[in-house]
Amino acid sequence: MRRVAVALLHAPVLARDGGETVSTVTNLDVHDIARSARSYGATDFFVVHPVEAQRALCARIIAHWKTGSSGERIPTRAPALELVRPVPTLEDAVLALGGRSAVRLWATAARASKETITFAAAREELTTEGPPVLLLFGTSWGLPPRIIAACDALLEPIQEHADYNHLSVRAACAIALDRLARS
Amino acid sequence: MRRVAVALLHAPVLARDGGETVSTVTNLDVHDIARSARSYGATDFFVVHPVEAQRALCARIIAHWKTGSSGERIPTRAPALELVRPVPTLEDAVLALGGRSAVRLWATAARASKETITFAAAREELTTEGPPVLLLFGTSWGLPPRIIAACDALLEPIQEHADYNHLSVRAACAIALDRLARS
Repeated sequence: MRRVAVALLHAPVLARDGGETVSTVTNLDVHDIARSARSYGATDFFVVHPVEAQRALCARIIAHWKTGSSGERIPTRAPALELVRPVPTLEDAVLALGGRSAVRLWATAARASKETITFAAAREELTTEGPPVLLLFGTSWGLPPRIIAACDALLEPIQEHADYNHLSVRAACAIALDRLARS
Repeated sequence: MRRVAVALLHAPVLARDGGETVSTVTNLDVHDIARSARSYGATDFFVVHPVEAQRALCARIIAHWKTGSSGERIPTRAPALELVRPVPTLEDAVLALGGRSAVRLWATAARASKETITFAAAREELTTEGPPVLLLFGTSWGLPPRIIAACDALLEPIQEHADYNHLSVRAACAIALDRLARS
């Protein structure tokens, strides 16, 4: 199985009006996506935020559960939160995996804005040898078109044709990892 | 497709020490599970809590997103939160679906404590005509054995054999609904 990492972007992401914005860190995003990532064998969970104070908040959440009082209360949380790596930009996450030519970027979105690959095809690709894959998720109204365009692939939307297509990013990430892992 | 509803129990649930306890409502449980339920066509999301003030909090969260200021800001949240029904006990949720003999209770757990049905078999059953199915999820350390024993079936654990088996209830619910919906 190929190395898979997850990145949650807080910038650049889409705002309600379709422009680009910076979102704030949600505590439970850090927990839930770390736990899902750890459950499905992802090696890293990059929390991408350009604001130093938001990365410091993230580091404080991690420390609280690794070595702080909550870590003693619920020790199973530490192995998940150990995967979390706050970084200022997506480029930093890519660099941590070896640089742009050494990593495949797979975007996710609620709607297909370009050709997509199916989860079945993506799963198949993960079983072959190759560079690590970084799965990108956007907070707020999702990843901007320029980020999706710069990725190597866009995964098929999870529920594009549902009456209601507004899963939380926590739920979308859990489902995507599950679909990529199951034969 | 058969009617499916979801219930999130805050009592009785297991505490860390293995005894039974009452947990508190988590704001994002209400949002995430409502959004997942709505995305996958579930008709109701029962938030089971014996404490009136906690049910009132839940009602306030719903109102804030249905008719309050956040409902105006993010109007896509209302169709999900409309599914949420705070009830004092599991029995009330069962009664709302027609009573014990008119509903099938399917429990979920991170580990199998009795014979389980596979998601494939459960999905197959949902495609046949029959009584509504209420999917039970436990907060805290999960559903107590007596609740699981009283259910008609226990779904196979999502990731029982993973090194790390500690998905959030929000993630577990999203994955379970996705697995039940996909052919």
